[in-house]
Amino acid sequence: METMKIKPALPKGMRDFLPADVRKRNYIIQTIKESFELFGFQAIETPVMENLNTLAGKYGDEGDKLLFKVLNSGDYLKKVTFNELGDADSRKLTPKIADKGLRYDLTVPLARYVVQHQNEISFPFKRYHIAPVWRADRPQKGRYREFFQCDADIIGSKSLYNEVELIQIYSSVFEKLKLAVTIKYNNRKILMGLMQALGLSGREQEGIVLLDKLDKIGPDRVLEEFKTLGLSQDQLTLFKTVVSENDIHALPHSELIQQGIEELEFVKKFNIPSSKFDVTLARGLDYYTGCIFEVVSNEYEIGSVGGGGRYDNLTEMFGKSDLAGVGISFGLDRIYDVLEGLARFPETLNASSSVMFAHYDDANQSYAFEALGKLRAAGIPAELYPDNAKFQKQIKYANDKGISYVAIVGDNEMKNETFMLKNMETGEQEEMSIQALINYLNSIK
Amino acid sequence: METMKIKPALPKGMRDFLPADVRKRNYIIQTIKESFELFGFQAIETPVMENLNTLAGKYGDEGDKLLFKVLNSGDYLKKVTFNELGDADSRKLTPKIADKGLRYDLTVPLARYVVQHQNEISFPFKRYHIAPVWRADRPQKGRYREFFQCDADIIGSKSLYNEVELIQIYSSVFEKLKLAVTIKYNNRKILMGLMQALGLSGREQEGIVLLDKLDKIGPDRVLEEFKTLGLSQDQLTLFKTVVSENDIHALPHSELIQQGIEELEFVKKFNIPSSKFDVTLARGLDYYTGCIFEVVSNEYEIGSVGGGGRYDNLTEMFGKSDLAGVGISFGLDRIYDVLEGLARFPETLNASSSVMFAHYDDANQSYAFEALGKLRAAGIPAELYPDNAKFQKQIKYANDKGISYVAIVGDNEMKNETFMLKNMETGEQEEMSIQALINYLNSIK
Repeated sequence: METMKIKPALPKGMRDFLPADVRKRNYIIQTIKESFELFGFQAIETPVMENLNTLAGKYGDEGDKLLFKVLNSGDYLKKVTFNELGDADSRKLTPKIADKGLRYDLTVPLARYVVQHQNEISFPFKRYHIAPVWRADRPQKGRYREFFQCDADIIGSKSLYNEVELIQIYSSVFEKLKLAVTIKYNNRKILMGLMQALGLSGREQEGIVLLDKLDKIGPDRVLEEFKTLGLSQDQLTLFKTVVSENDIHALPHSELIQQGIEELEFVKKFNIPSSKFDVTLARGLDYYTGCIFEVVSNEYEIGSVGGGGRYDNLTEMFGKSDLAGVGISFGLDRIYDVLEGLARFPETLNASSSVMFAHYDDANQSYAFEALGKLRAAGIPAELYPDNAKFQKQIKYANDKGISYVAIVGDNEMKNETFMLKNMETGEQEEMSIQALINYLNSIK
Repeated sequence: METMKIKPALPKGMRDFLPADVRKRNYIIQTIKESFELFGFQAIETPVMENLNTLAGKYGDEGDKLLFKVLNSGDYLKKVTFNELGDADSRKLTPKIADKGLRYDLTVPLARYVVQHQNEISFPFKRYHIAPVWRADRPQKGRYREFFQCDADIIGSKSLYNEVELIQIYSSVFEKLKLAVTIKYNNRKILMGLMQALGLSGREQEGIVLLDKLDKIGPDRVLEEFKTLGLSQDQLTLFKTVVSENDIHALPHSELIQQGIEELEFVKKFNIPSSKFDVTLARGLDYYTGCIFEVVSNEYEIGSVGGGGRYDNLTEMFGKSDLAGVGISFGLDRIYDVLEGLARFPETLNASSSVMFAHYDDANQSYAFEALGKLRAAGIPAELYPDNAKFQKQIKYANDKGISYVAIVGDNEMKNETFMLKNMETGEQEEMSIQALINYLNSIK
């Protein structure tokens, strides 16, 4: 090993997680995972690296720039000509020296996976994937270069029951997390029809992107910008009516709008708790074609904590065009911030071991170690302070780790064949046998 | 999105996992994780990328070559001079265009983490970390470029109780996995003493590496090679005796050997199931200083399925020198191969949902959907075939996904307010109410 000392540091935008962070994150992930599985979704895994030709061009020019690229192994300059090098042009050189990149999301890998394994999986394919993705974004508060996505998608089914179930999943997850949210939904067909009614045929996406700015810049400025797109006074009035009253009955009839309304009504009739139709919900991405979703906290100011929708052509880029899909995503980091901001994480998460044994000497420690084995055999997470340290140091250690109980062993306890159980919060102590200790710790689990 | 069609493929040496694979892998991971937590270890997480100056030089020249390096973002050639480029020397260019790499193991990141967060964590620090690592090795059967490590380490404690607990963890994990293994242990102090007794003072590591070849090349050739190191006949006899009888009493007295024996005796006296002292256990790595461990399967021919040991100076490379550590690692891929080879995975792992609802028309489906909600509310993972497909197609889907029960809904069932529950293995059918369905599925969970 090298002896030169290196100051320990992380690449920018990357994070370590301390044990207490991990427990909180896992609490959220576990809650999401349980709901996914309750609804019949199955986990898949894909490598963190994909071929760059799988990733490139899928996220726009900006996305291409934000891809982390992995240098080819070995002598990666071997096949690069002198002229190519001499240009000193990073963009031209990259494809010659890097053919792999870190995944940017879980959606393109899903599309690749589904086509590649189409003969091994059963359609409709209900998969979930909870894993990190990487983007070379400029790091800022709440935005990291490595972050988790938690996605569930159904590939190969046009049934609207999927939409209903996905909203139910949102509802069940946030209920379990004890967070009040609004699950907004809308339908791209209605939005497309609305844009057409506003005279924006052929430019519907432009109008949708504009509508998406509503939260950011407010209705007046959105209206201003719609004006510059050349809307008539009637069209502006129609837009104002639809948006302010969240009512689509004013829309003129069209086949597209009719289809959108039917899809919407199907979802609406289930009255899923916390869900609400919102005609202003737009979602910027251009690949949605049907129902779209977005979840916002009712209690904490933050962007959306989840979103998704139906898309028709996910797998087309990999040569398979008949697979419709619909999916949702949870924003782990934001949900974490909301739970933290509202102090809504369960208190029990602080604990690691249920109990730690503290002791005064080798004989005490040996006696404690035997009891430790019995606790663990009973399924109780437990630990022994491993070294022969000062008693107060042992107690401080348990306290720092958030361990709620310390079982103290001194000569008296050994003589009595007991343990002195100390409640770290109240300071109360009680002497008890090993069996009483097991029963007590099991009862409070 | 790009319209050019791309053949879906993965970078070489990387793997996708199908849902059934993931369930099997998670079964192993979950078993390991539960034992780690039962023994008071806490999970940490670190980014997949580390600065290259954190990783470089830690794994020898060969390791440096096998590191996956990540290209700097933006115009990475900006600071590279024309001369540096013109050399067309990959090795010289790399540090100028890549300052990050993918982690090669979980040990160096742990060392970095412990020093970086020394004021935020409590020592002795008992952490576990289950996560992928990357090595640009030549891919071959059973060796991948992305693979999981499952590590538990205690940093900052010299107590031998740690060694005992780590062996107990091995014992408990493999017992839970129902795999017969031998947990071999030895002590580097004894090995160092042995090498000194063989006249190899100053060249102990050379002798240990040679001993490590015993399994690969057999005792005769190891003896041959020891001869070439210049051992006398007496020394060769001593070596033969110690190795063939697995007995260290023949070793001459030295302080080092005495210390090794004391450490060994401490571990031995706990008689941990499946554990066994083995004087020939060497482990190639040079940083071990005390107890060393290795686990082999008694039933299946494969390399070791776990290993570890005590090291004294893990964090020295990051400027902190007083932290001793000891740790173990599980080989996930090999354990998977053993369980698969012996058909020892639990059968229940095949299931995803406990039941799938099949139906003949929209009305049946709607009736089934209502029941579905009740099952899920009762905590039973369940799904509905989402589309209006032919009945046989629905049944085949359930079968392909390994779902054990199908609840069939036709007009008769709707009229009777029942469901026809079909056991997919036996083909038996039974009509029952929703409550009976819930009770039955709960009873077989």
